[in-house]
Amino acid sequence: MALSDISAMARNETGIALALDILKQRFGERFATGDALRQQHAHTMTYIPAQLPDGVVFAQSADEVQAAVEVCAEHKVPIVPFGTGTSLEGGVNAPGGGISVDVSQMNSVLRVNPEDLDCTVEPGVTRKQLNEHLRDTGLFFPIDPGADASLGGMAATRASGTNAVRYGTMRDNVIALEAVMPNARRIRTGKRARKSSAGYDLTRLMIGSEGTLGIITALTLKLQGIPQAISSGVCPFPTVDAACQAVIMTVQMGLPVARIELVNALQMQAMINYSKLELPVSPCLFVEFHGTDAGVKEQAETFGEIAAELGGGEFIWSVREEERAKLWQARHDAYWAVLGLRPGAKALATDVCVPISKLAQCIAETEADIEESGLIAPIVGHAGDGNFHVSPLVNVDDPDEIAVLERFVERLNLRALSMDGTCTGEHGIGQGKMRFLELELGGAVDVMRAVKRAIDPDNIMNPGKVFIL
Amino acid sequence: MALSDISAMARNETGIALALDILKQRFGERFATGDALRQQHAHTMTYIPAQLPDGVVFAQSADEVQAAVEVCAEHKVPIVPFGTGTSLEGGVNAPGGGISVDVSQMNSVLRVNPEDLDCTVEPGVTRKQLNEHLRDTGLFFPIDPGADASLGGMAATRASGTNAVRYGTMRDNVIALEAVMPNARRIRTGKRARKSSAGYDLTRLMIGSEGTLGIITALTLKLQGIPQAISSGVCPFPTVDAACQAVIMTVQMGLPVARIELVNALQMQAMINYSKLELPVSPCLFVEFHGTDAGVKEQAETFGEIAAELGGGEFIWSVREEERAKLWQARHDAYWAVLGLRPGAKALATDVCVPISKLAQCIAETEADIEESGLIAPIVGHAGDGNFHVSPLVNVDDPDEIAVLERFVERLNLRALSMDGTCTGEHGIGQGKMRFLELELGGAVDVMRAVKRAIDPDNIMNPGKVFIL
Repeated sequence: MALSDISAMARNETGIALALDILKQRFGERFATGDALRQQHAHTMTYIPAQLPDGVVFAQSADEVQAAVEVCAEHKVPIVPFGTGTSLEGGVNAPGGGISVDVSQMNSVLRVNPEDLDCTVEPGVTRKQLNEHLRDTGLFFPIDPGADASLGGMAATRASGTNAVRYGTMRDNVIALEAVMPNARRIRTGKRARKSSAGYDLTRLMIGSEGTLGIITALTLKLQGIPQAISSGVCPFPTVDAACQAVIMTVQMGLPVARIELVNALQMQAMINYSKLELPVSPCLFVEFHGTDAGVKEQAETFGEIAAELGGGEFIWSVREEERAKLWQARHDAYWAVLGLRPGAKALATDVCVPISKLAQCIAETEADIEESGLIAPIVGHAGDGNFHVSPLVNVDDPDEIAVLERFVERLNLRALSMDGTCTGEHGIGQGKMRFLELELGGAVDVMRAVKRAIDPDNIMNPGKVFIL
Repeated sequence: MALSDISAMARNETGIALALDILKQRFGERFATGDALRQQHAHTMTYIPAQLPDGVVFAQSADEVQAAVEVCAEHKVPIVPFGTGTSLEGGVNAPGGGISVDVSQMNSVLRVNPEDLDCTVEPGVTRKQLNEHLRDTGLFFPIDPGADASLGGMAATRASGTNAVRYGTMRDNVIALEAVMPNARRIRTGKRARKSSAGYDLTRLMIGSEGTLGIITALTLKLQGIPQAISSGVCPFPTVDAACQAVIMTVQMGLPVARIELVNALQMQAMINYSKLELPVSPCLFVEFHGTDAGVKEQAETFGEIAAELGGGEFIWSVREEERAKLWQARHDAYWAVLGLRPGAKALATDVCVPISKLAQCIAETEADIEESGLIAPIVGHAGDGNFHVSPLVNVDDPDEIAVLERFVERLNLRALSMDGTCTGEHGIGQGKMRFLELELGGAVDVMRAVKRAIDPDNIMNPGKVFIL
């Protein structure tokens, strides 16, 4: 996607001016038009330039979200839903201006039902906040994208993370949700039953729609029992291919791995430096098992045998909390570690996902491409899902570097598509991957457009994202 | 739903006559208009009267499905997708006449990818046929509704079965699908990657849409490795409540139960008679664990402890294939067993699903209701999901009995809804539950209508199902 493609949309100046006036009266100090807050609400972690909203509403309830949407709907003003602003593909940009509706103050855990292993939260609750809240219940919420994102935002982008191989993604862990639709009507997409065949799956339609169909105002989430025991460890492999073969064998054997993260040699080097790990600069798998005391021991031992068979080094694992914590802290600090490889540069995270049988080939070709491109770009992946991230370190002020980066990202996406993979496993389309979505799904995107037009005929809800109407 | 509500829709006689002529020319002997085949294609397992299509196309490829849809789309003639005809809520009825598109001859397994644990099949492949095909691969497909349904039909109704507590429903086990849409365009909703954040989740939109948005022509499905070991057993409980408490404790402890089926006393009596089981006439749980040799032993023992704590009888379990087979054959023969309770009567299966904390109360109130209504109606449930079936035995030719049945079904659904449950866990809405869908989801049904109108503006695809437009 060339930078020039992220064009500004036509602005409805009259409508925006009216909406600004009305929202100022309605929300007072919780409506901001200052430059700093507008900048912050268009912040993206990409090379896509910021496109600022004209104002920011800090909503504190579904009623207030509805009130804001009513105003914008009446005057046909764009609305950009905002959680924590950690989207990676320009999802919070406002290409036609309009109003950012910030739900970060809607951060109450409304209800926990321990017997049913579910809870209902407001959209601004972050994943860490929820798990903190659940601390004494013996339950946890497993989805962990890199950032401490809001659960509303995580649902909107169909986020996942390291635990998805066992617990699924946001798609699998939202039982139902409430939303304010573009016509300002409120809906609830389901009851609290674990499964249902009642009507179209509007829950799943909203999940991954990136705020283009409505604003999520509450979510009912599945929770998991904290396992009796957890075993984690790291295993080095001679090659990425050997590591990927170990992943395939693990999954194929039905070993219920909770996390299986692939880290390539360059990423290991960064993490060793940053987190003081005593590990070789070699492709590694970070692995975790959840179960009973006996179960996690058996599983770790079985994995050790698989690794040995594929030429892996010793699989050193532990059930001790502090050792596990150090290991996963290092994994979650991967982004910060990467920055140390080229001080002053920005790390731009991009992701693709392929069938796991293609993962080794896709990463090998990508490593060769990185080498040829002269990029510094470590790789880390949710290998059990076939999902991996490349984090090129670039000087975003250098157009030549950006051009190299863009061509690399294009080749990466085309490579994944050619292997029956997807242009994004968990980051979403936003503005950055619209072209690849068309290449991936062709005519199906026209069906998405028909759905969008039916639900949002005036195209006010996060316009200019996912696809151009 | 009173019988009178299943009204015939207006017939487009001119269009139907034209379509019949064209399809006869196009499909020759694979286009049938005889009474027997039309009757068979409107066969339902409900008390809802049959509404026959005007003709039946036996399609043998996606191209042929597309050709049939093109004709019907041009002449605005209703299309009723047909797999095996095992739907339970009038899903294959043709209230406005039109063409039944039978895909049962599209029954090839197109591709199995053992390394990726997936396969791609045509929609007419049945679940048993697929598992037979997979026999030598060490893989299996877990979703098992009572009938040997087609996988296309199972996707269309978002089916599940006994394994859903561990492996999920069709919602969770379809990676992507291909469909012919009402405008006769063909789409594929995704690639083969395990997860994706690329655009709207059209896969999930089609799953559960009951043929109202298009005809599924291929499915890419997740497969599971056949576990190293399986342990199964039955445990009697003094009350349904005690059995449900055991289910809650099992789920809450994170015990990875693969099946946990509740059978009430009357259903046990039927199954004991039919399958010669040596078990007490008392509520029972049929339980199964999948894992390693050590794992399934540990899990069965843990379950035995839970059962004992709740006053259950001895949990007799086995890893021996023939004992397990007998047990699950009895469970799958539940429908036939039920018929023995009242020879000559028809068993009408209905289902609801509630949060598991409400399951005991919902079943207890339903048993009392059955008693008061004078119905003979055994209960069996996928207890781990909170989903249960009631199978009243009625003389369908007696309007008084049907009236009693309808009032009972209404109370059952309202009871489930009042407990934050759904009017159907796995059977779908069809014609039978439209009213309850409105009560369950209110304004969300209008969003479904908007989606339907956008994708099928002439309302030709399985009209008169799920909701009235």
